[in-house]
Amino acid sequence: MEFWGVEVKSGESLEVDPGYGKMIHLSMACLGEVKKDKGEPVTVYVKFGDQRLVIGTLTSENFPQISYDLIFEKEFELSHNWKNGSVFFTGYKAEPPLESYPSQ
Amino acid sequence: MEFWGVEVKSGESLEVDPGYGKMIHLSMACLGEVKKDKGEPVTVYVKFGDQRLVIGTLTSENFPQISYDLIFEKEFELSHNWKNGSVFFTGYKAEPPLESYPSQ
Amino acid sequence: MEFWGVEVKSGESLEVDPGYGKMIHLSMACLGEVKKDKGEPVTVYVKFGDQRLVIGTLTSENFPQISYDLIFEKEFELSHNWKNGSVFFTGYKAEPPLESYPSQ
Amino acid sequence: MEFWGVEVKSGESLEVDPGYGKMIHLSMACLGEVKKDKGEPVTVYVKFGDQRLVIGTLTSENFPQISYDLIFEKEFELSHNWKNGSVFFTGYKAEPPLESYPSQ
Amino acid sequence: MEFWGVEVKSGESLEVDPGYGKMIHLSMACLGEVKKDKGEPVTVYVKFGDQRLVIGTLTSENFPQISYDLIFEKEFELSHNWKNGSVFFTGYKAEPPLESYPSQ
Repeated sequence: MEFWGVEVKSGESLEVDPGYGKMIHLSMACLGEVKKDKGEPVTVYVKFGDQRLVIGTLTSENFPQISYDLIFEKEFELSHNWKNGSVFFTGYKAEPPLESYPSQ
Repeated sequence: MEFWGVEVKSGESLEVDPGYGKMIHLSMACLGEVKKDKGEPVTVYVKFGDQRLVIGTLTSENFPQISYDLIFEKEFELSHNWKNGSVFFTGYKAEPPLESYPSQ
Repeated sequence: MEFWGVEVKSGESLEVDPGYGKMIHLSMACLGEVKKDKGEPVTVYVKFGDQRLVIGTLTSENFPQISYDLIFEKEFELSHNWKNGSVFFTGYKAEPPLESYPSQ
Repeated sequence: MEFWGVEVKSGESLEVDPGYGKMIHLSMACLGEVKKDKGEPVTVYVKFGDQRLVIGTLTSENFPQISYDLIFEKEFELSHNWKNGSVFFTGYKAEPPLESYPSQ
Repeated sequence: MEFWGVEVKSGESLEVDPGYGKMIHLSMACLGEVKKDKGEPVTVYVKFGDQRLVIGTLTSENFPQISYDLIFEKEFELSHNWKNGSVFFTGYKAEPPLESYPSQ
């Protein structure tokens, strides 16, 4: 198990590939820089296969960070709609536990 | 283990079947779009067997997302009473650990 | 492992027995109905053996839900002092992991 | 695994000994009684060996409870500086998992 | 497994080495002393290899503490930009689980 983190810059999206036999545990998203004004809400998205899902809203005043408990074994894409800075995603990389049922 | 996510649209409910030998870990519910106004509180429900339970309240200003640590092996139904948009539920699918006692 | 949830109505308390060889993981308490007014704080209690402990405060505006990471193998009793509605408790039922030391 | 909880009264501190071959998972601290006024912030401390560390701030209005994910195998001491009431600490007692490296 | 905690003083950064065959689970960051005024937001950073990442924002009024679920097996460096006091980081030290795939 090891720390994992990425910065997703304004206007960009980032594809993440956990790699063979690995999974990524997404633990947190946070705004890169927080101003004292309230600011616009920033929506955070994950794209997984053909799904595009909202996974939370960040705001400078009330939600500079969000805790997650999400796991990815396949590729996924992180993005956000903040115009003024980066969103940082952190978590850890691990090997999934041995499964008790034969996989299909 | 793998990422799992669904969108439950306004006025709809969604039945989820984890599948044989699988469980779903529900990790988060979040509003699909957050406005700066305060908005009405949105109640989130789960139906499990003959139980219908409240599992939290979302609001644009104070609670655009809720973290969960809930596990389902059998079918369950997710719903909410938001009139203006979708609620997104995310988590992961896994195989339950081998149990130490003989199952009944 | 399986979902577990109960409703504790106003003025009532609920005794919960995880059952032989089982444990209950308490993951969340939430107000059943949230009004826009601020409302009185609602204290949540657990009774375990001869202990009666506060395990949190719910309010409509600021804390419509509380996340927990609590485990019970023996009987426990849940209660609250909300006069206007139910508190819902959710989590999951599981078998405790095999212990590495001989039990006493 | 079993529920664990203590009350630390105003002006007191409490030494906790998990016991041989046991660990305590500290999951939550909460104010015993919450008033509607804002109140002073209450600092929560842990003393572990020769370290005295702040582990959070409770306030009636904004933080009547704090979630933790802390583990203790050796003795530790809990305290707080609230003049008006008790702080309740809850979590569970467990046996630590078998370690994969020979212990030193 | 055992409790782990450090104090990172104003203007300083702290390098942490989990040690051979050990990992550190970072569970919380909190402001050492909280005043009733709102105060400036305090950014918390982790340096890991050649990455410097924001891992959250603390403020006296709204975020005196942040919960984490981060794991480090290699050295990492913690820092913050608070001019008026220390930030305390707590968590626990453990041995990583045996991995199911041969390590590379």
